[in-house]
Amino acid sequence: MTTLSEVARHAGVTPATVSNVLRNRGRVGASTRQRVLDAVDALGYRPHLAARALAEGRAPTLALMVSSIANPFYPEFALAVEHAARNSGHFVIICNTNEDPLAGRAYLDQIAGTLSEGVLVTNANLDFADLHTTESRGTPVVLCMWERPNEPPGLPCVAVDFRLAGELAATHLLELGHRRIGAIVGSKASGIHAARYEGFVDALRAAGAPKSRVKHAPDTIQGGYSAARALLEADPTLTAIFATNDLPALGAMHAAADLGLNVPGDLSVIGITDIQLARESRPALTTVAVPTVEVAGLAVSLLRELIESSYGQAGRQVAANVQMRISSAPKLAVRASTGAPRQGR
Amino acid sequence: MTTLSEVARHAGVTPATVSNVLRNRGRVGASTRQRVLDAVDALGYRPHLAARALAEGRAPTLALMVSSIANPFYPEFALAVEHAARNSGHFVIICNTNEDPLAGRAYLDQIAGTLSEGVLVTNANLDFADLHTTESRGTPVVLCMWERPNEPPGLPCVAVDFRLAGELAATHLLELGHRRIGAIVGSKASGIHAARYEGFVDALRAAGAPKSRVKHAPDTIQGGYSAARALLEADPTLTAIFATNDLPALGAMHAAADLGLNVPGDLSVIGITDIQLARESRPALTTVAVPTVEVAGLAVSLLRELIESSYGQAGRQVAANVQMRISSAPKLAVRASTGAPRQGR
Repeated sequence: MTTLSEVARHAGVTPATVSNVLRNRGRVGASTRQRVLDAVDALGYRPHLAARALAEGRAPTLALMVSSIANPFYPEFALAVEHAARNSGHFVIICNTNEDPLAGRAYLDQIAGTLSEGVLVTNANLDFADLHTTESRGTPVVLCMWERPNEPPGLPCVAVDFRLAGELAATHLLELGHRRIGAIVGSKASGIHAARYEGFVDALRAAGAPKSRVKHAPDTIQGGYSAARALLEADPTLTAIFATNDLPALGAMHAAADLGLNVPGDLSVIGITDIQLARESRPALTTVAVPTVEVAGLAVSLLRELIESSYGQAGRQVAANVQMRISSAPKLAVRASTGAPRQGR
Repeated sequence: MTTLSEVARHAGVTPATVSNVLRNRGRVGASTRQRVLDAVDALGYRPHLAARALAEGRAPTLALMVSSIANPFYPEFALAVEHAARNSGHFVIICNTNEDPLAGRAYLDQIAGTLSEGVLVTNANLDFADLHTTESRGTPVVLCMWERPNEPPGLPCVAVDFRLAGELAATHLLELGHRRIGAIVGSKASGIHAARYEGFVDALRAAGAPKSRVKHAPDTIQGGYSAARALLEADPTLTAIFATNDLPALGAMHAAADLGLNVPGDLSVIGITDIQLARESRPALTTVAVPTVEVAGLAVSLLRELIESSYGQAGRQVAANVQMRISSAPKLAVRASTGAPRQGR
């Protein structure tokens, strides 16, 4: 790889002069300028983006930290972030922390402020102290899917009312006539799906329905499969299962199939998010759709404002006023996996 | 973000001295050294990885270019690449080209040699000329899933015998007794799935089976769904469908479900790759498994050797001798989606 110094040597000028020519700065005579440009051509030197980023105190990419690239929600969200970022000429590099806060910290140390001028974080189980450290070093951070609009996290974020999503799922099942409903929560009790489950429980209570049986499980198809089997073995009279995410809901449908139960004839199943697989499964999954594309757009535009405000003069107030953006409300998407409970069950 | 220059000013030394202290090079007196380290602490300066990468002519990450992050194979492969790379202390940044050669070129220009010291490419539909340009600038490139071990691509690669994968799929269906088999090819006739289909066709011919009906389709569940419906409408006597990838095979199973056909009772379905969804679908998909984890490991170690050989002295021969690594052979994974054809069909 040709370096700036080699170009300088070839042109018989100082590296600073090469830099000035390439960045259109300083006073450089026309013949010197031409000599530098000829040397750039002759040696195949590329304007070195990392070098330019260093020189200007900014870097050309946005980083997207995801907690689990194997969970299909994150690739879908990454795609939406890319579309939004490309519209403003930014490239997105995706960093997968694999639910490991230490890996997350390492990525932040490697990438934030050096390779990327801003960081988007999606439920990446990162230590907030690490994110604040990154912020304090001058690299803005935006949380992309904050689950509780009423409880700001102390970092800029895009919030989605996930409590409402749980409520909408419960209301749909109640309106169909279900009263004996099992719940699969795809995180620990205090974890990121807690708000969804609270909304679900509150709606059941408000309707005077019996308390639901609940299993906490990994946020995967397999996790939902095992949890659904356990729920249905513990209480064969269940007529519906609510899962806090689509993957465990898909697993619940597989469990029903293996137990010889028809969905939705014998068992209704509903999830939250509306990943592509929800639309493509057989039967297609009823779910509460989260506005993923909208959230990606809001997150990228918030991050860009924070980046501008960190470097510009007028922008500083912006940063203070736009710490949280709230997406439009989640919406019920009724498909083939829910129906009225069969008589007699 | 604190810069090296600010540290130098604070310590009352030149930037070169700061750099020498941080890199343990040059002659720096003990008291000067201490003054620099104190300034680093006082200003919260981080050894700047991009700067160090520039200084040393190498960068700290590997880039993985994928063609479609929304296709679940690529996240699974990315995960395997990360595991392999982390073992050697490398971080992986994932760049999604979305099947767009221009986006791919832009990523290569942004990232190769500046942010990343090597590039892994997975069927990213990139222009080979762009990849050669990246190579010629001193950043090694490895193709991760070359489909034809007998036809080296002119770039370092890990090859998988995909022709054999197609042959194994055909042989499995023939041994079960199928003769009327439809084929779904998840690329254009001249595209990346051509070798798989050739293997399939050759095995049918060798067994004296009738030529299969074939549909080319997008490499997605939906693509497989539409192709399978078209095949089954054109010839309702088909007893099996071979798809060149798991996603279209899963789509074919959905089509069977919608047409009221039992899998495998009325229709056997087989794919290639063995993505996680193949194991998790109902019925679970019979497929020809590609050694994804092994390929990721081979690709990372080949890339690392090329990186070393570009900068070291002894390594240059290595580069010449290891242009292609061939993975172990694909293997049939029999699950629930294939069986003997029903009598009378």
